[in-house]
Amino acid sequence: MTLAERLRAELGADAVITDPDVTSSYEHDMMPLAPHGSPLLVVLPGSTEDVVKTVLACGEFGVPIVPRGAGSGLSGAANAIDGCVMLVTSRMKEILEVDPDNRLAVVQPGVVNLDFRDAVEKHGLFYPPDPSSYDWCTIGGNVSTNAGGLCCVKYGVTTDSVLGLEVVLASGEVLRTGRRTVKGVAGYDLTKLFIGSEGTLGVITEITVALRPLPQVPGTTIAAFPTIEAAGAAVSQIVREGLVPSLMEIMDAASIQAVEEYLKTELGAGKGCAALLLCQSDAGGEAARHELEVIEQVCRGQGADLAYTTHDLSEGQMLLRARRAVLTALEVYGTWLTDDVCVPRTRIAELMSGCERISREVGLRIAVVGHAGDGNMHPTIVYDASSEDEFARARKAFDEILEVGLALGGTITGEHGVGKIKRDWLAREIGPVGMKVHRAIKNSLDPGNLFNPGSMF
Amino acid sequence: MTLAERLRAELGADAVITDPDVTSSYEHDMMPLAPHGSPLLVVLPGSTEDVVKTVLACGEFGVPIVPRGAGSGLSGAANAIDGCVMLVTSRMKEILEVDPDNRLAVVQPGVVNLDFRDAVEKHGLFYPPDPSSYDWCTIGGNVSTNAGGLCCVKYGVTTDSVLGLEVVLASGEVLRTGRRTVKGVAGYDLTKLFIGSEGTLGVITEITVALRPLPQVPGTTIAAFPTIEAAGAAVSQIVREGLVPSLMEIMDAASIQAVEEYLKTELGAGKGCAALLLCQSDAGGEAARHELEVIEQVCRGQGADLAYTTHDLSEGQMLLRARRAVLTALEVYGTWLTDDVCVPRTRIAELMSGCERISREVGLRIAVVGHAGDGNMHPTIVYDASSEDEFARARKAFDEILEVGLALGGTITGEHGVGKIKRDWLAREIGPVGMKVHRAIKNSLDPGNLFNPGSMF
Ligand SMILES: Cc1cc2nc3c(=O)[nH]c(=O)nc-3n(C[C@H](O)[C@H](O)[C@H](O)COP(=O)(O)OP(=O)(O)OC[C@H]3O[C@@H](n4cnc5c(N)ncnc54)[C@H](O)[C@@H]3O)c2cc1C
Ligand SMILES: Cc1cc2nc3c(=O)[nH]c(=O)nc-3n(C[C@H](O)[C@H](O)[C@H](O)COP(=O)(O)OP(=O)(O)OC[C@H]3O[C@@H](n4cnc5c(N)ncnc54)[C@H](O)[C@@H]3O)c2cc1C
Repeated sequence: MTLAERLRAELGADAVITDPDVTSSYEHDMMPLAPHGSPLLVVLPGSTEDVVKTVLACGEFGVPIVPRGAGSGLSGAANAIDGCVMLVTSRMKEILEVDPDNRLAVVQPGVVNLDFRDAVEKHGLFYPPDPSSYDWCTIGGNVSTNAGGLCCVKYGVTTDSVLGLEVVLASGEVLRTGRRTVKGVAGYDLTKLFIGSEGTLGVITEITVALRPLPQVPGTTIAAFPTIEAAGAAVSQIVREGLVPSLMEIMDAASIQAVEEYLKTELGAGKGCAALLLCQSDAGGEAARHELEVIEQVCRGQGADLAYTTHDLSEGQMLLRARRAVLTALEVYGTWLTDDVCVPRTRIAELMSGCERISREVGLRIAVVGHAGDGNMHPTIVYDASSEDEFARARKAFDEILEVGLALGGTITGEHGVGKIKRDWLAREIGPVGMKVHRAIKNSLDPGNLFNPGSMF
Repeated sequence: MTLAERLRAELGADAVITDPDVTSSYEHDMMPLAPHGSPLLVVLPGSTEDVVKTVLACGEFGVPIVPRGAGSGLSGAANAIDGCVMLVTSRMKEILEVDPDNRLAVVQPGVVNLDFRDAVEKHGLFYPPDPSSYDWCTIGGNVSTNAGGLCCVKYGVTTDSVLGLEVVLASGEVLRTGRRTVKGVAGYDLTKLFIGSEGTLGVITEITVALRPLPQVPGTTIAAFPTIEAAGAAVSQIVREGLVPSLMEIMDAASIQAVEEYLKTELGAGKGCAALLLCQSDAGGEAARHELEVIEQVCRGQGADLAYTTHDLSEGQMLLRARRAVLTALEVYGTWLTDDVCVPRTRIAELMSGCERISREVGLRIAVVGHAGDGNMHPTIVYDASSEDEFARARKAFDEILEVGLALGGTITGEHGVGKIKRDWLAREIGPVGMKVHRAIKNSLDPGNLFNPGSMF
């Protein structure tokens, strides 16, 4: 019996895809630089039981498993390796429970982030993690990458919202971590060990998350700066003054220009605007008015040419649209390749000027957008995918940006993960002792290297 | 050369204590039920280097190490085992850095929580974790137990404030985890694996924490309920209404009565008050006024006989004093033994009535106080330490409370930890697969069982 036959017998014929025309669409995520292979087959489990059967069968056949959610990742973490089984969670998309009185919910991993947000909003509740891909990425993928988004500056990243997990281990055993209570310290924090482990330690089959009350409708402030240094100084001062906006995003001149052309709008690039800062406050009423007033003052004080605040929701959304449009706007010029470094919040301007230098050196457009409130920046390189030379220069720029990020006391990945594209960089960031500990933990939970081999480290 | 001689030679004579009159004062923490032995010696390292030397020497001599901060723990986790080395961090108490622009600080593990709070407050910053023992427990102990406190309902527990660690491993290697940036997903979240690991995986020698802006001066609401069910219903409704007070504590009739006698004050016990709820809001200005107004209304709506709000700081502190005095007040009646269960917030009343039943059954006073906003309750048993029979009944009550907590969907420990007192209970809560994973991880990092053997599991 082949592995495909066994899985068909155990999970049903529907759950197993071997047609290469179909399986090829599961070969890679959204990171063009990362290597990928061709899977042996794709399996679509419908339950934890199905996952257990898949894991046991693959273990016996010695075939590695690459777990996959929506494939929206930007690190190649969900990329196939030759001959692997792609375990795709798209059929495990039930919201199992919403408990408003305890502000928690239980979901299967394949639920799409936006579907889940909408479902809990009906109960007046809020699930903060909001990666920009929220209309198609999955909660399981978010948990496995510890995804961030625009809300993190106030509400933290995915790990801050997860209470417990169900995980199928390499042995086929089902582990339950965490709990349904707000607090708990019984044993090691295994929940947070699996969060961000990029499919290398097990398959997450159920997730219990903590929810928050729905925040107030946000007010929005936009400020245009003549230099990136001035914008960076404004960010530092906002942090130092103890303000906690619910969103604080930055766009450089290259991003602004691209968006202006794409949206046919006027944001100030022509008038010497070097950086836009976008802030929101969802503190509500007087508190939000006060917070945004102070932010506006800080921006002006740091030399903003323009600073404007609105408490009208649709106007705020329109301003935010510019930020959300950057990647799409860049597609007019070529293929985008987005990097992901996080630096101390005081070093944002230095990172941006480093990117300007790299852009000149490699001769490619680099647009910098980012979550300024966290220091998490996404310098995005635009290149011609049909040119080997441009591809090579894009790759060079990608690496040099990481170099600058590390030199500024930052990390090689703020939210997208290590995956198959930053493996060498992980070793540089965490050093030999860190690598040894990673290998020891991986080996203790997955001694046969069944899950996502060759990813992360 | 004996181990003591070697450590004296390497760390200096001051750093090593072998006098049994002195070492005996390091034998146990504050949990009277937990077993303890007599250490071979106490070592007081002054630096990471000293810790490395201690770990290497103990490894060579095959002598286990029990790390210890202030010994304020309530699980016996820092209790000596016979012939061990107690590694006490009291000399490593430097605040190495406070960086207001990036809202972070770096400290040695032996810094006392209160000293650290005071130091960052000078910069207008706030370190939330505030265990009630904050005037003597250490940040290293807080990190190793993932300590909570009164602030958690709004600001989370210790793990939510830690960015990175330096840890000396069993191999003597120095591991750095995490980072100085707000976000970061490079590799497994080793930081959070060490947080709450109760000294079983390594010695924490440096801690990088995230700070928050100083909150506003809080307003305070106190409400007295005729039944615990009414108080429980008020807590549930406060959660459901989406309110986020910065403190929400509950006291039962036994606690109220003890405090009334101790503080010579009148809180309502005589008038049939079955439970007091204490809430604070630090949202500031209008927002705080509104939040506490709604809380007051909810309490009245759920049948509170009295509900009173003050925005005067010293009056608020006076009200809080009643909550803080419970343990001391109980000492009038005997020795206290405090339990620590966390249940879903909707099940608080059931837990409290379970404790009433247990109190009747064992014939001992049990006073329940707790962090109602988190469902984290501390039923506190009062017994005569000189009576073997009372001790046995206290132990029985302690276990039965855990039984009730688990049956309500809760955990055996919300913040105090497993230590040497709840080892059997850990297995009951997390089951055989969970235990297997714990052992695998412990074995991968500390194969010789050098650190705190016999604690946690
Ligand atoms: C336009 C765009 C914008 C984006 N914006 C953001 C952003 O703002 N913030 C951010 O953090 N990310 C962002 N991303 C990246 C990506 O969307 C996130 O990493 C997301 O969390 C991936 O979810 P996914 O379901 O697509 O997972 P996949 O890409 O399918 O997988 C990601 C990783 O998770 C593992 N995995 C998935 N499901 C499971 C499971 N059930 N068990 C075990 N392992 C599993 C995979 O093996 C892989 O390692 C963006 C991507 C795009 C294309
Ligand atoms: C009156 C009273 C009130 C309390 N209130 C609370 C409360 O509200 N919330 C709460 O969470 N706890 C509370 N506690 C419990 C206790 O104070 C906390 O658990 C605290 O975090 C322990 O800190 P410590 O420095 O005393 O650590 P210790 O008791 O000395 O040690 C605790 C654990 O940490 C380990 N450890 C200590 N330092 C290190 C290190 N550097 N590296 C590795 N391991 C280390 C020890 O081995 C042990 O396992 C209270 C205790 C008392 C007595």
